[in-house]
Amino acid sequence: MKFGFILDMLKFFKVIKRSSKSKARLGLINTAHGQIKTPAFVPVATKGTIKSLTPSQVNEIGLQTAFVNTYHLVTHPGITLIEKAGGIHKFSRLNLPLMSDSGGFQVFSLAKSKRNPQGSTKRADVRGEEKPLLVKISENSVLFRSVYDGRLIEFTPEKSIEYQKKIGADIIMAFDECTDYPATYEYAKKAMERTHKWLKRCIIKKQTIDDRRSKIDIPQNLTSTINPLSSKNQQALYGVIQGGTYRDLRRKSAEFVTSQALDGIAIGGVSVGESKKEMREQVRWVSDFLPVDKPVHLLGVGQIDDIIDLVKYGLDTFDCVEPTRLARMGTIYKISNFNPQARGPISKTEELDITKSIFKEKLEPLDINCRCYTCRNFSKAYLHHLFKQKEILAYSLATFHNLYVMERFFAEIRALIEENKL
Amino acid sequence: MKFGFILDMLKFFKVIKRSSKSKARLGLINTAHGQIKTPAFVPVATKGTIKSLTPSQVNEIGLQTAFVNTYHLVTHPGITLIEKAGGIHKFSRLNLPLMSDSGGFQVFSLAKSKRNPQGSTKRADVRGEEKPLLVKISENSVLFRSVYDGRLIEFTPEKSIEYQKKIGADIIMAFDECTDYPATYEYAKKAMERTHKWLKRCIIKKQTIDDRRSKIDIPQNLTSTINPLSSKNQQALYGVIQGGTYRDLRRKSAEFVTSQALDGIAIGGVSVGESKKEMREQVRWVSDFLPVDKPVHLLGVGQIDDIIDLVKYGLDTFDCVEPTRLARMGTIYKISNFNPQARGPISKTEELDITKSIFKEKLEPLDINCRCYTCRNFSKAYLHHLFKQKEILAYSLATFHNLYVMERFFAEIRALIEENKL
Repeated sequence: MKFGFILDMLKFFKVIKRSSKSKARLGLINTAHGQIKTPAFVPVATKGTIKSLTPSQVNEIGLQTAFVNTYHLVTHPGITLIEKAGGIHKFSRLNLPLMSDSGGFQVFSLAKSKRNPQGSTKRADVRGEEKPLLVKISENSVLFRSVYDGRLIEFTPEKSIEYQKKIGADIIMAFDECTDYPATYEYAKKAMERTHKWLKRCIIKKQTIDDRRSKIDIPQNLTSTINPLSSKNQQALYGVIQGGTYRDLRRKSAEFVTSQALDGIAIGGVSVGESKKEMREQVRWVSDFLPVDKPVHLLGVGQIDDIIDLVKYGLDTFDCVEPTRLARMGTIYKISNFNPQARGPISKTEELDITKSIFKEKLEPLDINCRCYTCRNFSKAYLHHLFKQKEILAYSLATFHNLYVMERFFAEIRALIEENKL
Repeated sequence: MKFGFILDMLKFFKVIKRSSKSKARLGLINTAHGQIKTPAFVPVATKGTIKSLTPSQVNEIGLQTAFVNTYHLVTHPGITLIEKAGGIHKFSRLNLPLMSDSGGFQVFSLAKSKRNPQGSTKRADVRGEEKPLLVKISENSVLFRSVYDGRLIEFTPEKSIEYQKKIGADIIMAFDECTDYPATYEYAKKAMERTHKWLKRCIIKKQTIDDRRSKIDIPQNLTSTINPLSSKNQQALYGVIQGGTYRDLRRKSAEFVTSQALDGIAIGGVSVGESKKEMREQVRWVSDFLPVDKPVHLLGVGQIDDIIDLVKYGLDTFDCVEPTRLARMGTIYKISNFNPQARGPISKTEELDITKSIFKEKLEPLDINCRCYTCRNFSKAYLHHLFKQKEILAYSLATFHNLYVMERFFAEIRALIEENKL
């Protein structure tokens, strides 16, 4: 009994409670850098910083985890430096469970994008990201020059795993090809098949590195006998379901990916496309295939009004730039009338655009019910003043608030599952 | 004895110790928002925020005071709003003794500047400040349109005091005319005479407002009987010594200003001009006239290598944009070889330009001897990465460090006076 309890403690993922009304579940992800209570929101720390927040503020908000982008870190400051620093946790002082993506999303979007058919010009795309200078793209690899120092950088399935191993996030992703929206059936199928082939190579590569490390690094191996989570060997690998907007491809991909020896499952390339309905559909198609004993992550999607539905499909974690990006634009979250009993998404999420002149003289807090640092201290008028004056403090106060709201929102969701109300 | 002690506690300024080697002194400024141990550095919070820092971080650094700019606050968010919010402390949550300037520096520089002879174009000056649209300048007033909403704004000696009363800083400045560098003797003389005339009007205006408030606002008056510092009536008024780069004018101005019924003395328009030597000279000229029982503030000057000399001339407080502005540009303070025994300024202050590529892979802290949040947590390489990527966190981490260094530096100076070593 006691031994079973310890084993449970050491398990990467543990389901604590399942809803009887939906696939929603309460879980616990164990990592070397702490636990993640699921469902959980995963804010982005693209380049090794949750934009505008210190790690102290990250702790104060109570963030459980964050998401770093391999492509960005490879480009700047470079993998060698991060490895030399002892991994991304030590480098950034984000001392919490971290996830990294494979880089596939960025390196492929630059080649496949219709907005950039040659893929050879340095330019900013719609997300404001600088595109690297593409050198060569083949079935197997993407080669480009860094926009910062002209270095040649190569991404292959194996390279992606190597990079992520060195970055050292607690949860890493297999290299996938993310289809643009819209994509033809033929292309989506081809991309999916490539993703599956690559998944196998990623699993092998990760195993090879882990085995080599175990052999060389005896003390680390010893440590991991005692606590399997305290070693880098214990990075969890997720495979990524692709298949674009096509039901049969999504289901086929789900079937394949979930059959592999993986620690978790991610759903990638889910496109909001024409409507949110479409996005939910793409998730719903695969939801029957999702494993009951492995955590499921949704890549890059997770607007506040989608979350409840997605949790009901059995999804556990969600990374999304929205709360932080919108905060820096002055868009402030406010959840009023939170009503999960109602059909569909939560009945109302409000967003304030604090830069609007109607807030110029409003001396009440952003949200009278919010207990975050920003709301406990500052008025709408002060935030408005800071935003209009482009004061740096505006961005951190708004980011603090939006992420605090997201954390409370997910805590609320977990409470509802606990009470079997979802 | 006990009563004397209480009176001492309530005094605006108290000299605790005088050096026998120079005019350096250890003092205590009492305000309704706390005490300032002098000599003290006064970082700027121009628009009601120490750029990039939360009030929590301000407390964590241990900042004693900050400096807000009346001209900026009048222009945005406006005085009415700040008054409605209960003053700048409540609006900004900078819960520490604050100083405000008279607005004279900004409103005059726009009219007198050779760079902007018409004074009628909206443009940024060398300090990167947006110049308002000047409407009319006369002997008595400056009238201009706000660049934000086109409102007509007027500055006169009386208006400046009114604005500052409403802003509610603990220490306010009489309206002065700040001469540009270089200025002719004739102009410097005229500006000085105007400043003196205006000083008298400012003293009367402040008295009038205080008297009116005492009559109307009985509860406030009652409070102030118990603790004279807890009421807005108790804002301290400083007069400003002008006189440009001319010895006789400076001395004349010092003689006049120090003869008035004021709580403290400020030295304004001190120009670094051709050399730092010149700047120190302008201060030295007036140092014999400075009162032994009133605090002395130096307006807008206070580079780290000037401070020791200026303290020896009997100056108590210094506001300066440098530590914060340089921080946002990636210039990091490092005081090594702090040696006040050596003749002249401290023997060496180092500045790192963290954006330089030599720091790209340096994994040690900015300053191994510094105990600030930034140095306790982050490497030069991480700061370099953040600056190169224009990450917002770069600015707050660097600002935190530079202000922490300034605070420690002044604590060091106070310790030296305590030990009679300065």
